[in-house]
Amino acid sequence: MIAQHPERDQILLENVLSALGNPLRLQIVRVLAESGERSCGSILDGLSKSTLTHHWRVLRDSGVIWQRPAGRENLLSLRREDLDARFPGMLDVLLAAAARNDQGDSHIAAR
Amino acid sequence: MIAQHPERDQILLENVLSALGNPLRLQIVRVLAESGERSCGSILDGLSKSTLTHHWRVLRDSGVIWQRPAGRENLLSLRREDLDARFPGMLDVLLAAAARNDQGDSHIAAR
Repeated sequence: MIAQHPERDQILLENVLSALGNPLRLQIVRVLAESGERSCGSILDGLSKSTLTHHWRVLRDSGVIWQRPAGRENLLSLRREDLDARFPGMLDVLLAAAARNDQGDSHIAAR
Repeated sequence: MIAQHPERDQILLENVLSALGNPLRLQIVRVLAESGERSCGSILDGLSKSTLTHHWRVLRDSGVIWQRPAGRENLLSLRREDLDARFPGMLDVLLAAAARNDQGDSHIAAR
């Protein structure tokens, strides 16, 4: 496991919300919620490696995802168990809100 | 009402989460949730006017609060009805998460 994952009880709400307060990172979390563990390169197309690396780091450091090396890639997964334990019900409500956000706002859906 | 409040259907999840991804702004929202409309100056002590003005603007522009002038002050209130309509259940879950966040992390509670 790559360093700098906070322990469960070190996951802070403000860091999680700040990490999710970005359309790309919300999209990444939705993909991981639907599909389980994924390789870094298989989640979003058309973004530079440095941009993606930045977003993985924000999500990892805030405690939203696990990131672990596997060969030449990193595998990413949602820390659902930790987030559900720390803030019960929040992840599901936020995933539902993200789905509504898309429906209500065509410019997001078209990105 | 001061300009730059988004309409209900223009409230975007990423903006709301980004606005709430800050300990001071989370605290402001908790105070407004408990006490209803409050004057700007009555919510947090010990912060400069420019710091507070910045936080009011972030909360207002994201659609989290109403801000309206009243005499020499502004009055603030939570846009609970709009947030509940746009993202059902989210505000209550986030307020509960904020309460847990405080309990689980003494350095936040001591701020």
